[in-house]
Amino acid sequence: MVVVMAPEATQSDIDAVVELVQTAGGDAFVSRGVSRTIIGLVGDVDQFGALNLRSYSGVTDVVRISVPYKLVSREHHPNRSVIDVRGVPIGSDTVTVIAGPCTVETPEQTLISARMAQAAGASMLRGGAFKPRTSPYAFQGLGEAGLRILADVRAETGLPVVTEVIDPATVDLVCSYADMLQVGTRSMQNFTLLQAVGAADKPVLLKRGMNATIEEWLMAAEYIAQRGNLDIVLCERGIRTFETATRNTLDISAVPIAQRLSHLPVIIDPSHSGGRRDLVLPLSRAAIAVGADGIIVDVHPHPSVALCDGDQALTGEDITELANMVRTLPELLGRGLTPAPQPAATP
Amino acid sequence: MVVVMAPEATQSDIDAVVELVQTAGGDAFVSRGVSRTIIGLVGDVDQFGALNLRSYSGVTDVVRISVPYKLVSREHHPNRSVIDVRGVPIGSDTVTVIAGPCTVETPEQTLISARMAQAAGASMLRGGAFKPRTSPYAFQGLGEAGLRILADVRAETGLPVVTEVIDPATVDLVCSYADMLQVGTRSMQNFTLLQAVGAADKPVLLKRGMNATIEEWLMAAEYIAQRGNLDIVLCERGIRTFETATRNTLDISAVPIAQRLSHLPVIIDPSHSGGRRDLVLPLSRAAIAVGADGIIVDVHPHPSVALCDGDQALTGEDITELANMVRTLPELLGRGLTPAPQPAATP
Amino acid sequence: MVVVMAPEATQSDIDAVVELVQTAGGDAFVSRGVSRTIIGLVGDVDQFGALNLRSYSGVTDVVRISVPYKLVSREHHPNRSVIDVRGVPIGSDTVTVIAGPCTVETPEQTLISARMAQAAGASMLRGGAFKPRTSPYAFQGLGEAGLRILADVRAETGLPVVTEVIDPATVDLVCSYADMLQVGTRSMQNFTLLQAVGAADKPVLLKRGMNATIEEWLMAAEYIAQRGNLDIVLCERGIRTFETATRNTLDISAVPIAQRLSHLPVIIDPSHSGGRRDLVLPLSRAAIAVGADGIIVDVHPHPSVALCDGDQALTGEDITELANMVRTLPELLGRGLTPAPQPAATP
Amino acid sequence: MVVVMAPEATQSDIDAVVELVQTAGGDAFVSRGVSRTIIGLVGDVDQFGALNLRSYSGVTDVVRISVPYKLVSREHHPNRSVIDVRGVPIGSDTVTVIAGPCTVETPEQTLISARMAQAAGASMLRGGAFKPRTSPYAFQGLGEAGLRILADVRAETGLPVVTEVIDPATVDLVCSYADMLQVGTRSMQNFTLLQAVGAADKPVLLKRGMNATIEEWLMAAEYIAQRGNLDIVLCERGIRTFETATRNTLDISAVPIAQRLSHLPVIIDPSHSGGRRDLVLPLSRAAIAVGADGIIVDVHPHPSVALCDGDQALTGEDITELANMVRTLPELLGRGLTPAPQPAATP
Repeated sequence: MVVVMAPEATQSDIDAVVELVQTAGGDAFVSRGVSRTIIGLVGDVDQFGALNLRSYSGVTDVVRISVPYKLVSREHHPNRSVIDVRGVPIGSDTVTVIAGPCTVETPEQTLISARMAQAAGASMLRGGAFKPRTSPYAFQGLGEAGLRILADVRAETGLPVVTEVIDPATVDLVCSYADMLQVGTRSMQNFTLLQAVGAADKPVLLKRGMNATIEEWLMAAEYIAQRGNLDIVLCERGIRTFETATRNTLDISAVPIAQRLSHLPVIIDPSHSGGRRDLVLPLSRAAIAVGADGIIVDVHPHPSVALCDGDQALTGEDITELANMVRTLPELLGRGLTPAPQPAATP
Repeated sequence: MVVVMAPEATQSDIDAVVELVQTAGGDAFVSRGVSRTIIGLVGDVDQFGALNLRSYSGVTDVVRISVPYKLVSREHHPNRSVIDVRGVPIGSDTVTVIAGPCTVETPEQTLISARMAQAAGASMLRGGAFKPRTSPYAFQGLGEAGLRILADVRAETGLPVVTEVIDPATVDLVCSYADMLQVGTRSMQNFTLLQAVGAADKPVLLKRGMNATIEEWLMAAEYIAQRGNLDIVLCERGIRTFETATRNTLDISAVPIAQRLSHLPVIIDPSHSGGRRDLVLPLSRAAIAVGADGIIVDVHPHPSVALCDGDQALTGEDITELANMVRTLPELLGRGLTPAPQPAATP
Repeated sequence: MVVVMAPEATQSDIDAVVELVQTAGGDAFVSRGVSRTIIGLVGDVDQFGALNLRSYSGVTDVVRISVPYKLVSREHHPNRSVIDVRGVPIGSDTVTVIAGPCTVETPEQTLISARMAQAAGASMLRGGAFKPRTSPYAFQGLGEAGLRILADVRAETGLPVVTEVIDPATVDLVCSYADMLQVGTRSMQNFTLLQAVGAADKPVLLKRGMNATIEEWLMAAEYIAQRGNLDIVLCERGIRTFETATRNTLDISAVPIAQRLSHLPVIIDPSHSGGRRDLVLPLSRAAIAVGADGIIVDVHPHPSVALCDGDQALTGEDITELANMVRTLPELLGRGLTPAPQPAATP
Repeated sequence: MVVVMAPEATQSDIDAVVELVQTAGGDAFVSRGVSRTIIGLVGDVDQFGALNLRSYSGVTDVVRISVPYKLVSREHHPNRSVIDVRGVPIGSDTVTVIAGPCTVETPEQTLISARMAQAAGASMLRGGAFKPRTSPYAFQGLGEAGLRILADVRAETGLPVVTEVIDPATVDLVCSYADMLQVGTRSMQNFTLLQAVGAADKPVLLKRGMNATIEEWLMAAEYIAQRGNLDIVLCERGIRTFETATRNTLDISAVPIAQRLSHLPVIIDPSHSGGRRDLVLPLSRAAIAVGADGIIVDVHPHPSVALCDGDQALTGEDITELANMVRTLPELLGRGLTPAPQPAATP
């Protein structure tokens, strides 16, 4: 941490900062420049943050130097992690495809979507039972009935299930059906929820908040990790910008950056970022090419009657094209496609 | 709602849309242009939203025309609402000042802050007991102990208390101490929480999400209203932009816009938007001048030892200056300052 | 400037940076922390910028500490400047109102608009002759004919004229008619144009780029100042954000910030930021209340037939209301309204 | 174009709009809804834009339906264009690599950079002679001396040259040396410059403004096309967002969207968007995978002494890796790499 003094700061201003830092158990190194002095702090940065150094006389700026997250940082954990979801790995060796309907509507729709997911090369099933919707008048999901459908379809297809959890009070319920808990973009800073999934014994798919910096995203992962759950997969799904041609702007650079800052796997959601079906395949290709550890894609047998986000669901020939792509592109980059698990019972 | 057809759309594409809308119980008016055709839909717009019209052949765009919120809209409720918080009105006749510490730390600090608030012209006390913090290593608030301190200070000063609630599970607890529930910027789309405060019998201060459009903010208010609680005050507190000189960018235009779209009162938080003490007074003046129904301001007896956001708390002479301003500026604009209530017991 | 070394940086990495800086004529102070080392640089920061320190082994970050502008900075020029435009002052003592049509259309429309401006309390006339338009099919302004109209109206009313210049090649032409040169938001980083107006002998109204940080805005002013012209007035006119309810988001906090960083006057354009007539008066009040040194407002006798931006022009009773406001609000804040000059000939 | 009437609009309000449109030579179709009426306009949309419909009584909104550009639109030109730059094609059949130094510094540095570009698979040379720099104290480029160096290196290597033009007054000069004119991100709305390059007889590389919507970018292209020059290549180079981990946020979705809206080729600049060397290769792969028609990349023999943007220049082994990638990835997607031309004289 560096304290920047104003040009008009006095010697006693400087001494006051040094003394404050030393009292707090840190060290302070003073560098006197031509026009201003800077003070480098050494010690427990989190403690310095509570000193409100900015409010001291003569201080113009306080610049943080080291990253504010520890457990998810790659600095102390140089090898990239592989997360196991009921036998399906997500990590740096392979590219994992997760697919399924945005929302669970009926057993048939979910099963057909899971079959489409398998045909597309997926080794995991996605599907929403609890839906966070901008409008209170929109369909809010089937709740536990939806979770039961997902579990049934898993039994039928063998695909592990990831589904969203939106309320700390239902984390246990969702854990009793799902294999992986999704924390959605609107919940990325729902800290009570982060702590609840941090205390759960299921891996977590943490979507980036649409307004969150990469650092805040990693801090949200740190919340989960701090409660003891390090099985976290990060998911970039687009950020909010001035551009209105897409629902959100896919921040594709976030993948290599997050992979360098953190040991956690990073995947991309090409469906929700663009919000348009015609963007899903190009963005999926870009995701794999940039080095993402996987993609999570909406599919639906009949997008035009989907209860949620039908505009972006893949269907028909798109599935074949996606399947061809995920069988060739990862290989060119030295990775395989994560194979789908087999169901316990024959389908 | 207007459906825009592609130039190459066929007559049967157009007929399909018309039939779909009519089957859904609506009416469709076809306007044939030189290069393209548009179809105006009349009926239940929320139902049309579920039709996924965008996925139909020949459709290039679907444009929503009417606002997606009803209960909080001014369209059907032209008179602006006044919300009563334990006898203190927030609304269009007066300007209400809410002040207090960002975080409740000790009984003394809270009481002194409340006295500062009164000196500044405040008629309500703010103070956080449950704090949503970006870092899991930062101080998370005193919890119920903090609520008890706020209630004690209310008894001493007579000031009604507004405090943040971050978890649906603690809404009842917070209601048992507080006079108004604050939903913070990071919780604006925590829909479970919105529903919980919507079912509570306390007024709600709904901060705008730092990434939320004005429309999404009003939709969040609609969530609360839909559960039966229309005692909502909107609070603009800055949005996230590319500018880094301030913590967030105060969207001052949001006040007159939200006041025209909704009958709910709208106040401004000049402390959290800028994140800098030197901006609080100028932004408070601007807030009142633009027509806000109030301001909510951080004060602290010793900002340099505050456990949270000390950089932005007013203290010392700022309090006097704020007091002078709120006693003169509203008057110039034809409004009074909301008077502070008296404590039941003599202070 | 501070160089942050990686945790794994070696002693020779550190030595290399120190030597490089010393060779460039600077000094380097090394602060060794528990987990990493930082190096404070002292000397000519602009020269250090050319060293590409980031590309050296062991370096993770380079943080600039001092501001990159000098001539417009308040650091070396603590007193705020007052700019004189043909006898009309813009600065900290008074509030200056500039008003007029967005675009000069006819002599009559311009004269009537100027009379409206005077009625509104304006002491300067605005009006566009060269218009930067997003569409090549939109009206591009009258060019020199428009400048002549402005000069005629100045003779008639006594109001000094500010008008936009969009091409370095026409700076001399515009100077021969106008009293102040406006550099528009889209030209804020047209560096050739900045240099041209920097070499001109007229004051400059420099609008903030809609995507520019406050620092970049001040750097643009520095370009003008560097060529010898320090008669610069800064104008905040809204930045681009995700919010679509307004054309741009007025960054009202930019006023006190720019006033603290720079000695130059800062005014606000409430017409172009919001793009809506119903926002102009509330934002004008907010501008004056926040401490702006003036406002620049669109007026038009018949907004519905205006050739440009008619949606935002004040007319009719708005003028009276603006006049009342600018005669009372500045006074409350200890400032007067800048008086309008008299025409040389009787009107 | 659709006019949305307010719920309280009267019949005469509606009649007034209809009459106004008909007087302007258009047709108006009225659709009466339950709560409001919409009016669809048919005819010359640009003319309707000048009607200021928003200012009429009873009108709440005016929604544009068709795209405001014509010449660059794909609507009337369904086949995607291939642009020829001195024999090198840029377009949908192949992927074209453009590489070179950010800035021309010396003949040697430029020639070595060109050789690196060839080694990387490039068929065109980039290099800046006129540099738009945020700071007036930064190196502004060699000017005509730089252009001469570029021409000499072209003679030596056979690579056509693209270089930036920043001032309408030097377009002719740049044309006399360069094969393609680059309009930079800060000049995208320098309309005088757009018109000047539109009148030139060289192809144009039009970078997207960092704050420009895709629609505004296509409007800028329309400016160039309107003056008679349709040899335009669009270049996405990152937009400005709240994220500070990268210099700009590469909007990779802009490529498929612009390709669908316009017939012009679209390439990506992975160097300037991220501003970090470690992002260039991942973003280059993503660019080709998403379907871009090319990439433009900074290379430099000694990045640590580069006079501009050395932090992002590829060098050493990166070149080999880029070369391998551009020889395999396009093929997987059914495209070839654009071959480099041979120099007239043997090198």
